[in-house]
Amino acid sequence: MDELILVGIGTGNPDHLTLQGIAAIRGADLVLIPRKGADKADLADLRREICARVLGAGHQTRIAEFDLPKRDADGDYLAGVADWHDAIAGAWAGTVAAASPAPRRVALLVWGDPSLYDSSLRIAARLSPPPRITVVPGITALQALCAAHRIPLNGIGAPFLVTTGRRLREGGWPKGVDSVAVMLDGTCAFQSLDPAGISIWWGAYLGMDHELTQAGPLAEAAPRILAARAEARARHGWIMDIYLMRRG
Amino acid sequence: MDELILVGIGTGNPDHLTLQGIAAIRGADLVLIPRKGADKADLADLRREICARVLGAGHQTRIAEFDLPKRDADGDYLAGVADWHDAIAGAWAGTVAAASPAPRRVALLVWGDPSLYDSSLRIAARLSPPPRITVVPGITALQALCAAHRIPLNGIGAPFLVTTGRRLREGGWPKGVDSVAVMLDGTCAFQSLDPAGISIWWGAYLGMDHELTQAGPLAEAAPRILAARAEARARHGWIMDIYLMRRG
Repeated sequence: MDELILVGIGTGNPDHLTLQGIAAIRGADLVLIPRKGADKADLADLRREICARVLGAGHQTRIAEFDLPKRDADGDYLAGVADWHDAIAGAWAGTVAAASPAPRRVALLVWGDPSLYDSSLRIAARLSPPPRITVVPGITALQALCAAHRIPLNGIGAPFLVTTGRRLREGGWPKGVDSVAVMLDGTCAFQSLDPAGISIWWGAYLGMDHELTQAGPLAEAAPRILAARAEARARHGWIMDIYLMRRG
Repeated sequence: MDELILVGIGTGNPDHLTLQGIAAIRGADLVLIPRKGADKADLADLRREICARVLGAGHQTRIAEFDLPKRDADGDYLAGVADWHDAIAGAWAGTVAAASPAPRRVALLVWGDPSLYDSSLRIAARLSPPPRITVVPGITALQALCAAHRIPLNGIGAPFLVTTGRRLREGGWPKGVDSVAVMLDGTCAFQSLDPAGISIWWGAYLGMDHELTQAGPLAEAAPRILAARAEARARHGWIMDIYLMRRG
């Protein structure tokens, strides 16, 4: 493998794909598709659908699927993540080594953008010998959230913070900012805030056919979000959601 | 005008365009292209190039250019911005009204993404009668910066702040975060920081043919960035740049 191309594919709408992403997939010898288990089969399906659409007749790109190793959630968080990244790098290398003829240019389809709360760059750094890394940016959930609600991320000339559910729960409203976007929140950490003066814009399955949105003052929107989230999660077997909050 | 579609076109690479953006341009009756003066003619040229590429034979979409009003930089900042947005809304409405036959679906090509340090949503809210607003997300300079440097925006599970040059200069390193991205910085505000322990990844004209990047520990990268920036600005007549800094 001479080159590993991390292709951001957006957040579930196949039309989020950029012309640069299409060219990268078509130019690859092999596309790697992770399988994340039955409950997230939709996500592998989307990657297969994108490949089928992009790789019409006349393209030689092969596709190889691999089972994504599971993270050990016990013990130290950062050590657990490091072990998990080692295991994923091994799965990538093994899948590429098993492909014949040996691929030189390998593409990995990354949900959203490889730069935003994604591990692919850190996993790629573990490969030996190191291939050349190319990053193709893709539409993120942050952007899909703002597009769905037709709102800007930032106030005029003002900063915004992007953080995680864990950080918000542990640290409360961050200092010095009035706009806060929250990702990777499995437990609706907005419930830990005093809702006075806070508005929220929430979205799940952004870009997908079953996209959901809710918005309003946090005090009255929170119960609506909790109910919509629980119902959708039960129906689909999984959920990915994100929200933006503004104060004042 | 029944619908105004704000189409994020990415940061200068025509291949940043998404399939969703292409469909939106093709489906519009009229595309509005702002002219920002001779020194930024490259930016209008890029929009024209995108339209020419996307609108081949068989598409009825018309194109209308308008001169972007200038912002009065004297007096109160927020009041000046509000007046400027009023003037731009007037220019949009006037350009649409002058088109015959009257267009129903109007697309505006927005640099980057309409949600990130862009005024189009706030300007659109001034239109009367209010059209339906649709937002098509596009690749931002933040993503193009990270792609060019092959780095993530955030540390593992950690927050990041996006702010402006003005805020960084006035407030110093923001509290509670180790990753800070800076946009809208005409005066290299990183010079106001104590560089000890800070690394910087800088990029200008991201996505364009003449893309420039610099990176390293802030103390030794800062003079390189200042020199590259001054030279490029003199050569091209304008510059758009952005940077990410990390501490520790």
